[in-house]
Amino acid sequence: MKSEHLPEVRICFVGESFVNGTGDPECLGWTGRVCVGANQKGYDITYYNLGVRRETSEELKQRWLPEVTYRLQPEYNGRVVFSFGVNDTVLEGGKTRVSFLNSILNARQILSEAKQLYPVLMVGPPPTLDNDQNVRIAELSEYFARTCNSLDIPYLNIFPLLKQSTVWFDEVGAYDKAHPRAKGYQVLADLVQNWDAWSKWFPAIR
Amino acid sequence: MKSEHLPEVRICFVGESFVNGTGDPECLGWTGRVCVGANQKGYDITYYNLGVRRETSEELKQRWLPEVTYRLQPEYNGRVVFSFGVNDTVLEGGKTRVSFLNSILNARQILSEAKQLYPVLMVGPPPTLDNDQNVRIAELSEYFARTCNSLDIPYLNIFPLLKQSTVWFDEVGAYDKAHPRAKGYQVLADLVQNWDAWSKWFPAIR
Repeated sequence: MKSEHLPEVRICFVGESFVNGTGDPECLGWTGRVCVGANQKGYDITYYNLGVRRETSEELKQRWLPEVTYRLQPEYNGRVVFSFGVNDTVLEGGKTRVSFLNSILNARQILSEAKQLYPVLMVGPPPTLDNDQNVRIAELSEYFARTCNSLDIPYLNIFPLLKQSTVWFDEVGAYDKAHPRAKGYQVLADLVQNWDAWSKWFPAIR
Repeated sequence: MKSEHLPEVRICFVGESFVNGTGDPECLGWTGRVCVGANQKGYDITYYNLGVRRETSEELKQRWLPEVTYRLQPEYNGRVVFSFGVNDTVLEGGKTRVSFLNSILNARQILSEAKQLYPVLMVGPPPTLDNDQNVRIAELSEYFARTCNSLDIPYLNIFPLLKQSTVWFDEVGAYDKAHPRAKGYQVLADLVQNWDAWSKWFPAIR
């Protein structure tokens, strides 16, 4: 019953609008939903949502360290989950906001630094309604997978899984053409909760 | 139906663990709950939770501006809600973590800067189970009210209201002696939603 008997875990979720949960009228997104799930398993989660709309990996590279270390000081059981990349692939003035190579280099730098400080997971970028952009996201996601593999960081490639989700695309299409609503975020939360790397963070207690 | 027809508002909630929603197994806290309420009224809220556990006003003074301006750039309809003060009143080594005078000066500086950039609201600090600390919190809350009044910033003095809430104290007592659970945060969310200053941010649309 008392909180001191529950394992306390503090998690920073870091990334772009999909981490923020933009579009979810229930204000949970996938990140809030997976933390609710961990609480239901008997953990005591401190949930820090550090998703920022429109942010690229170039910007995130500058921002994540001060914001995360401020919240996850060494005396706490701190963990970090990253998810970014879609904004990098957006075209502006005929080219992507961040070049493919720089996206990969940014991811490598961010993740290399983070894993020296905390247990780290990475969730890949989701698909959009734009098929040309999806080609870029799918390729980026594959390279993120390789990067994570080489750093021994678990990576969840949600792109091909969400690509099959009619719930996701129906909600994205009916809302702002980029973000889903509550049901779409629940689909993504389910993918994370069924992921063995996430489950290993929260082994059965009783 | 489409998002471009809903008024978009981006809100940063800035403060300590009570802003973070620490203890709420539903991962909403009072801040998520009031944003869900605004969504239900027909607004399209981007919800940025910038609550940090254990943070004093002295620390918040250094942190809030870079984190908020990064999320609420001038092209967006950005608003800021502050709530802090309990951690200032905690005794360490025989004295409070922040002196009474410095708490007031910090609040004045933070709020003066913020109101030049955004519409601002302030919610006062809640009561704890410690009667001696509550004397300090009640006095601080009164001075925060005067500070806000002099700056023409709406202030919600939740201290005397929550002091009457058996739901709040039952949950605080059964959890960690500081934070409530879902029902206590709902009580606080209801106070905010019934506050005219909050309601004025979200006039009836239809």
